[in-house]
Amino acid sequence: MPRTSRKRGGRHARQEREQATAPAVTPFITRKIPEYVLLDEEGLSLIEDNADTILQEIGIEYHYPPALKLFKQAGADVKGELVRFPKGLCRKIIQDSAPRTFEQKARNPARNVMIGGKSTVFAPVYGPPFVRDLDKGRRYAMIEDFRNLVKLTWMLPSLHHSGGTVCEPTDLPVNKRHFDMVYSHIKYSDKPFMGSVTHPQRAQDTVDMCKILFGEEFVDQNTVVINLINANSPMTFDETMLGASEVYARNNQASIISPFILSGAMSPVAAAGTMAQILAEALTGMAFTQLVRPGCPVIFGTFSSSMSMQSGAPTFGTPEPALVINGCAALARRLGVPFRSGGSLCGSKITDAQAAYESANTLLPTIMAGVNFVLHAAGWLEGGLSSSYEKLIMDADQLGMMQVFAAGTDLSENGQALSAIREVGPGQHFLGCSHTQENFKTAFYRSSIADNNSFEQWQLEGSHDATVRANKIWKQMLNDYQPPQLDPAIDEALLEFIAKRKASFADSNI
Amino acid sequence: MPRTSRKRGGRHARQEREQATAPAVTPFITRKIPEYVLLDEEGLSLIEDNADTILQEIGIEYHYPPALKLFKQAGADVKGELVRFPKGLCRKIIQDSAPRTFEQKARNPARNVMIGGKSTVFAPVYGPPFVRDLDKGRRYAMIEDFRNLVKLTWMLPSLHHSGGTVCEPTDLPVNKRHFDMVYSHIKYSDKPFMGSVTHPQRAQDTVDMCKILFGEEFVDQNTVVINLINANSPMTFDETMLGASEVYARNNQASIISPFILSGAMSPVAAAGTMAQILAEALTGMAFTQLVRPGCPVIFGTFSSSMSMQSGAPTFGTPEPALVINGCAALARRLGVPFRSGGSLCGSKITDAQAAYESANTLLPTIMAGVNFVLHAAGWLEGGLSSSYEKLIMDADQLGMMQVFAAGTDLSENGQALSAIREVGPGQHFLGCSHTQENFKTAFYRSSIADNNSFEQWQLEGSHDATVRANKIWKQMLNDYQPPQLDPAIDEALLEFIAKRKASFADSNI
Repeated sequence: MPRTSRKRGGRHARQEREQATAPAVTPFITRKIPEYVLLDEEGLSLIEDNADTILQEIGIEYHYPPALKLFKQAGADVKGELVRFPKGLCRKIIQDSAPRTFEQKARNPARNVMIGGKSTVFAPVYGPPFVRDLDKGRRYAMIEDFRNLVKLTWMLPSLHHSGGTVCEPTDLPVNKRHFDMVYSHIKYSDKPFMGSVTHPQRAQDTVDMCKILFGEEFVDQNTVVINLINANSPMTFDETMLGASEVYARNNQASIISPFILSGAMSPVAAAGTMAQILAEALTGMAFTQLVRPGCPVIFGTFSSSMSMQSGAPTFGTPEPALVINGCAALARRLGVPFRSGGSLCGSKITDAQAAYESANTLLPTIMAGVNFVLHAAGWLEGGLSSSYEKLIMDADQLGMMQVFAAGTDLSENGQALSAIREVGPGQHFLGCSHTQENFKTAFYRSSIADNNSFEQWQLEGSHDATVRANKIWKQMLNDYQPPQLDPAIDEALLEFIAKRKASFADSNI
Repeated sequence: MPRTSRKRGGRHARQEREQATAPAVTPFITRKIPEYVLLDEEGLSLIEDNADTILQEIGIEYHYPPALKLFKQAGADVKGELVRFPKGLCRKIIQDSAPRTFEQKARNPARNVMIGGKSTVFAPVYGPPFVRDLDKGRRYAMIEDFRNLVKLTWMLPSLHHSGGTVCEPTDLPVNKRHFDMVYSHIKYSDKPFMGSVTHPQRAQDTVDMCKILFGEEFVDQNTVVINLINANSPMTFDETMLGASEVYARNNQASIISPFILSGAMSPVAAAGTMAQILAEALTGMAFTQLVRPGCPVIFGTFSSSMSMQSGAPTFGTPEPALVINGCAALARRLGVPFRSGGSLCGSKITDAQAAYESANTLLPTIMAGVNFVLHAAGWLEGGLSSSYEKLIMDADQLGMMQVFAAGTDLSENGQALSAIREVGPGQHFLGCSHTQENFKTAFYRSSIADNNSFEQWQLEGSHDATVRANKIWKQMLNDYQPPQLDPAIDEALLEFIAKRKASFADSNI
């Protein structure tokens, strides 16, 4: 890309363009409300004991020799690929070095996010091979969709994070698409993002691109990329994911160690048993990262859902996963590490009432449990098989509401509003009183999607449902989109790196 | 109605018919999870102090001379219709006599409900002048709709209560429709129900019909009807509602004293101020019932929502009312009375994603706050202007999920499921293991509405949304409906009473 083409109008004009579309900066949520904890001390201890029993008696399979070596050195009992851990070993390794909270740097420092403690960060859907929108229906995702979803996510202020595989760009070869994905996050957004985990070399490519963007030393001293490392539940980790995690840990980058659980298939059909297994798996994966590089950032993650025992299909928004999210969040706090779970999950194929009920039934328990990093917070449809343009917009509206909820009740004099009650008195209305005049602009969350008009007005305007309104919004947004400024020298260096790397090996879809 | 017509097939055949359609009896939810409390001791005390200030300095207007007289006798400062209360007076009156919990009797004792403490009771939507269904759209509600909604509510096991004005039967005269409403609840359901509050005489008619159903002495000694008494917020109670409440209190029947709040119109645009006002209003209304008859059951209620400060339209499912519900539930527990609030509220005109998001955003905070009596728990649409057949079915499914959530995590040996984890081991699946075999039938909540099939299967079956599926369900249910048995002598006596009363005064729509 010629450097000059980015310079039309000079710096000032660029800034003006940016201000026109850049989202307001509330880089992440700082929860002022307490966490909702469903289990008591006794219940949480019981689950911790059971996790210890799993680690000690049953063990975890590690299909990755370097991990077996590290665990043996640390004092675990390694037999073939099965690793059994003395009681408390993983916990000690983690608590000795893993940070309780850490900051992920964005290329725009105003968008740095804190991960852990009272902070909550929302990231969009991760992984779908399909996309869906109201105009073109469901189809295989392309890199153009990927770019669109990154752009929209950047423009939505309630999404704090650009995410990772917002959809699979199926028009690009599997072994090279990570370059285009990481580049898109860097180019079309200035929010923090996630890296490739599908091969250790792709993880290294991600780190190398980050070094071009942030500088080599900065990357070694700071966390600039977060990465999703799934366990092969039950009780198994594979080479691909661990290899990627090792690359990131060695480079001081963050891994989310996430048991991926559909209860009934990958874990028992019981919440307490599922939680013990998740904790056991996550403990070992997190310990692995600390053995690779003590002090590197790591997140206790879980993706938890149930399945239909009739059809074997995954189900979402049911009460059982809400219990698991809540319990695991409390277990992570006791351990002293950040926690990832939840999202706006649903099984519906379209953005109908099922999608919304199920998403809300996942998102609200997520917020109330105090989850720190929320992947799939917007755009998830069809059990994660589709990224939905309309749902991204709808969910982002819900995330805005969660931000207000998490701020809790304002108990200041203005929040107490006794002056208003005194001024208005019995039988009158508050519409015109001074307190209302002073506060009405920020008083209530204003939904971008909800239609609160009268039935007659709504009918007059075409009887649209929420999906139709969301469709209009994302199209207008893409139309208005202006990219955030990226140093042309960096842009050029990234493109050069990508071109060189892509040319160095053949395309493959494995 | 001829007595013999009810006797076809004899008692045994009747019982068989009943069993065919009668819902499983889980008469109400006993929450095993803790309440989520957003405000701390200091915050709750501050709001209580502010409520005292409102009562002491500003006062409440009572447009009802008998109330003014009672309050004066109790030590309040009465000037015209304005009543100011010495600090702590209302609280003392309530705490001296109001029950912390009480049982509402149903004509089928298996359906009696506990109100208060750890119990939660779900009742359907109350008040809409319109109904909506997928086939006929939106239209004025008729008595036929009322009967249908009572029948469906009876058949839905997650609804514990038959409710009251499930829709307004607009084809009947205003001054006589209460007879048909109360009769429908008695005749077509055996769940507990609500009485008329639109005139003291209509309250008396309700009590008289209850006496026919339950017996005179039984009614005096037991609570058989719950009644919704709205305050004319801000800080005003009117003659109609108070007169009805007085009738019920005198007869030992329950009043829900409910400030009806759209923040911004009836209260300040701030949650803490709104809570103080709600508490002040509810305290006086509850105290009134205890002055009428010490010890009669009373519920601290509130209907709380916000409004669009742009259009003045009420809004639902936004975060601010969730804060108010949570705070008021905690205030009610501190006072020591049952609490009513929440529901499945929404502003959408149709059962789309907006309706579902908003409803879930009201219902989940309701459950987590530990609300005891949840009116509008199912069927509410369009800001309460429409009762929706489809939404009744959809919401009832959600209520079933809340029941599972409220049961919390099973920490028994079976819930811990270590045997399953031992049996399965690393890398295998849990589908066929003994624990799964033993538990799969009850392991996970099974939604009646959700489609969890593959995209292809869903498409093959017609690409239906949740509304279409709900439409099929309620039609099948009405088709299958068989009424619960009612003693023909009682039925005859009720019909006789109604006919006599209806003939004794002219129809009127006031």
